[in-house]
Amino acid sequence: MADIQFDYDLFVIGGGSGGVRAARRAALLGKRVAIAEEFRYGGTCVIRGCVPKKLFVYASQFPEAFEDAAGFGWSVGPSSFDWPTLIANKDREIDRLERIYATNLEKAGVEILRSRATIEGPNEIRLVATDKRITAGTILIATGGRPNPFPGLPGAEHCISSNEAFHLKRLPGSIVILGGGYIAVEFANIFVNLGVRTTLIYRGKEILQGFDDDLRHELHQAMVKKGVRIDCEDTLVEVRQKADGRFEAHTQKGHVHDADEVMLAIGRKPNTEDLGCENAGVELDEKGAVKVDRYSRTTAPNVYAVGDVTNRVQLTPVAIHEAMCFIETAFKNKPTVPDYDTIPTAVFSQPEIGTVGLTEAQAAASLDSVEIYRAKFKPMRNTMSGRDETMLVKLVVDAGTRKVVGAHILGPDAGEMSQLLGIAVKAGLTKDQFDATMAVHPTAAEELVTMYEPTYRLEKGERVAA
Amino acid sequence: MADIQFDYDLFVIGGGSGGVRAARRAALLGKRVAIAEEFRYGGTCVIRGCVPKKLFVYASQFPEAFEDAAGFGWSVGPSSFDWPTLIANKDREIDRLERIYATNLEKAGVEILRSRATIEGPNEIRLVATDKRITAGTILIATGGRPNPFPGLPGAEHCISSNEAFHLKRLPGSIVILGGGYIAVEFANIFVNLGVRTTLIYRGKEILQGFDDDLRHELHQAMVKKGVRIDCEDTLVEVRQKADGRFEAHTQKGHVHDADEVMLAIGRKPNTEDLGCENAGVELDEKGAVKVDRYSRTTAPNVYAVGDVTNRVQLTPVAIHEAMCFIETAFKNKPTVPDYDTIPTAVFSQPEIGTVGLTEAQAAASLDSVEIYRAKFKPMRNTMSGRDETMLVKLVVDAGTRKVVGAHILGPDAGEMSQLLGIAVKAGLTKDQFDATMAVHPTAAEELVTMYEPTYRLEKGERVAA
Repeated sequence: MADIQFDYDLFVIGGGSGGVRAARRAALLGKRVAIAEEFRYGGTCVIRGCVPKKLFVYASQFPEAFEDAAGFGWSVGPSSFDWPTLIANKDREIDRLERIYATNLEKAGVEILRSRATIEGPNEIRLVATDKRITAGTILIATGGRPNPFPGLPGAEHCISSNEAFHLKRLPGSIVILGGGYIAVEFANIFVNLGVRTTLIYRGKEILQGFDDDLRHELHQAMVKKGVRIDCEDTLVEVRQKADGRFEAHTQKGHVHDADEVMLAIGRKPNTEDLGCENAGVELDEKGAVKVDRYSRTTAPNVYAVGDVTNRVQLTPVAIHEAMCFIETAFKNKPTVPDYDTIPTAVFSQPEIGTVGLTEAQAAASLDSVEIYRAKFKPMRNTMSGRDETMLVKLVVDAGTRKVVGAHILGPDAGEMSQLLGIAVKAGLTKDQFDATMAVHPTAAEELVTMYEPTYRLEKGERVAA
Repeated sequence: MADIQFDYDLFVIGGGSGGVRAARRAALLGKRVAIAEEFRYGGTCVIRGCVPKKLFVYASQFPEAFEDAAGFGWSVGPSSFDWPTLIANKDREIDRLERIYATNLEKAGVEILRSRATIEGPNEIRLVATDKRITAGTILIATGGRPNPFPGLPGAEHCISSNEAFHLKRLPGSIVILGGGYIAVEFANIFVNLGVRTTLIYRGKEILQGFDDDLRHELHQAMVKKGVRIDCEDTLVEVRQKADGRFEAHTQKGHVHDADEVMLAIGRKPNTEDLGCENAGVELDEKGAVKVDRYSRTTAPNVYAVGDVTNRVQLTPVAIHEAMCFIETAFKNKPTVPDYDTIPTAVFSQPEIGTVGLTEAQAAASLDSVEIYRAKFKPMRNTMSGRDETMLVKLVVDAGTRKVVGAHILGPDAGEMSQLLGIAVKAGLTKDQFDATMAVHPTAAEELVTMYEPTYRLEKGERVAA
C-alpha cells in the first residue's frame, strides 16, 4: 500500500495536539510517518496553554481556601507564595508531559524530527535545521497559532503575551491586561488571586463575547468583587517604559495605569508565516489561516491542515477530533467531516464557566418560543465560609420541541459539569428528561434537574413572564 | 372541594424532606394542611444527615489543601483546628435552614405544629404536647427513620450514632466505627482527615455493599492510605468503659481497640414505634416500616406514607419525589407512581463516589454481552501536589443495545458528575452518543467521553479480553 516513490506516507508539520494525534494514528495504521516540531512537542495546549494555565489556576485558588477555612474551625498561620517555585514545578510537570508525547510518538513508530519544516513543493518538505529535503505522499499542516501582536501600539515591544506570562522571572506587583477573551479573563483571575493589582482593559462592551450574557455579567461582577479593575470600551494607545523599568499604560479614554507588566491577550493568529504554503499551492485566507474544505483538505492535492492553523474552532479537543477525521478521510478511505455541533467548553475563570449549546440571545434570535430556567444560589461551602459569591445555572429550552438547547453555569466545577451536560444537550434530550432524573443531594448540579418552572419565556425574541 | 367534616384536608406527621414538600404542595393547591414535628423542621437531611455531614466533609478537606499548596509554591504556617467552632458554625447554618423550612411552610399557609403526633383512628390524630385531637381527610406518615441500635451488644449504651457525632463536645483522639455503609465510610473519612485515629470495623467482605466492586476496592485502598484502619469480616462483641472514661472495643476476631468514642453506623430503622399505626389499620412490615403500595398508599384508606419510614430508597430526593407523586395521586386526581429507575447517587467519602445505573456485577448477571470502559489516572491537581491518589472512571455498556447502563466515578467532584451523568444514563443514551460529545479540556470528566476502546468485555457474565 505504501507509496515508495516518497520518503514517507505522511509528513506532519507541528507537534501539537492535532499533529501528534494524526501522526500516531497514521503510524499505528502501518503508514511511514515523520513529524517535525521546531519548539517543543505538546504544542500550545501542553507547553503554553491549557495545561500550565490550569496549574496556575490551581495555585491561585489556595488563598481563598486559606480564608474559607476559618468558617470551618481552622486557624491557618501566615502563608507566603513563591512564584519561582510555581514556575519550576510547572516546568517539571510540562517536561514530563512533553516526554510522554515524544514517547507515545516513538512507540507508534513515528520518526520525530526536532526542526522547523517548510513546504517546498506539493510533496516536498525542507528541514530548516539541516537543510535536508524530504518527500511525502501526504502533508499535514498542524502548526497551530500564537498570540496576536499589536503592531500599531507604540511600546508594544514592552508588552508580554500569555507565552511570557508562563515564564516571568518574578510575580508582578501589578499588571494591565488588554483583552476580554477567555485568555485575558483567566489570567486576570490568576493574577488577582495571587495578590497582583490587576487591571483588565477591553474595547468591547462586556468581557467574554459570544458567551451567554448572564454569565458575562455575573462573572464581571464577581471579578470586580475580587479586586480586578475592569474597564470595558477602552483600549491601550501607548505603553511607555519609565526610568525605574516599570511601565505606564495609556488608554484611549485617557487613563494612565502604572504597572510592572502589560500583557496583550487580543486573540491568536495562525502560524503560517514563512511556512512555504505558496510553494505547494496551499492558499491562505485574509487572516493568514490555511483554507480548508469540510474534510480539512487545503487547496493543494495531498496537503491537509487541522487545528488552530485553520482558524476554525481554536480548542484542543477540536484539533484532535479534526486529526482523527483526517485519518479516516486520508488513510482509511472513509471521508469524515468533523462535527462542530454543540461543543461544550469551559473558561477557567474564578468562578469557573461551563457552557454548551445556544446562549439565551442565540435562542431568542433563532427560535419562536423559548423557556429560560435560571437559578442563582450560594454554593453550600460558601454558607459557612462566608464567601460572598453565588452560583448561576441556566437552561435554555426550545418550548416547541422541549429540547434543552443550551446549558450555562458559573460556579465551582462548572467545567466538569459542562462536559457531562454536553452529552445530554448534544443528544437533544428534553427538559422533561432532565426533570425525570433524580436529584443527587446535596450537590450544586441538582439545581439543573429541579428547576420545574420557567423563570421567564421569550416569544419571538421578546421576554415575557413565565 | 374541601371536606369540611374534618379539621384539615391533609395532616402530615413529620417535618422532614418528604413531609414538608407534601404539606407545602397541598397548601399551595388550596388544601387546609397541618404538619406536626416533634423535633426540628428539616428532618434527617437538614438537621442530622446530608447537610451537616457535607459541612463536616468540607471542614475535613482543608488539611489536604494545606498540604497540597506546597507543590504550587505556597508556604503555609502551622494550622490548628477547633472542633467547637465547627460545631457552632454548623449549628448556626442548620438553624438558618430550619427557619427557611418553617418560613416556606408558613408562606404556603400550612399550620405548623411543634408536637409529636400519633394516629388515633382512620382520620384522627392526637397532638402529644397538648393531648388535642384533630381530624383530617388524609393523613401522610413521613416520620423518617433513625440509626439502628445494637441491643445485643454489651456496652451498646456507651456508643454514639451519627446523631451524636454531630454534637460531640470535643473531637475524639480516636474512634472506632462499626459499619460499612455510606454513613460509616463518610464519617471515617471525616474523622481521619481531622487527625482522629480511625478504625472501621465491618462484618461484610468489603465496604459499601451494593456499589460497583471496583469503586469499593479503590476507595478501601485510598482510605487505608489516608490512615484508616479497615477490618472487614469482623464485628464488635463488647464495648467496655475504662476507669479513665475512655472505651475498649472488643471484636469477634479478638482485637481490642482503645478509643475515645465508639460509633455505630449499622443501618437505619423506620420511626413507627408508638405512632399508633394499628389504630387506623396501617400495617407495618417485619422491619417496622409502613407497608405501602406503588402509590404510597398504606393499608388504611386515606393514609399514605412517604420517605424513609417506608424503607424503600432512603434518599432525600426520593422522599421528595414520593411526596410530589403523592400530591398528584391524592389531590390532583392523577395517580402517579414514583420512578425508582436509575437513581444517581453519591458517597461523600474522600475521594468521593458518584454512581448511576448498573454495577459491573449487575450488568454481568443480567446482560449477555457487556463492554467495560475504565480509566484510572492522576487528577491534574495531584501531579503538582504530589498527592498519591488516583481517579477512577468506568462506563458499563450493554454491547447489544450500545446503551451506557452504568457510570461509576471515584475522585474529586464525583457527586456533581453523577448528577449530570444521571441525565444521560437515565435517558438511555448510547456509548456512541457519549463519544460524539466533544471533550472539555482539561477536565477529569473528559475521560468519560474519550474512552474509545473497551478495557475488557463480559460474555455471559465471564470476563474476556476486549
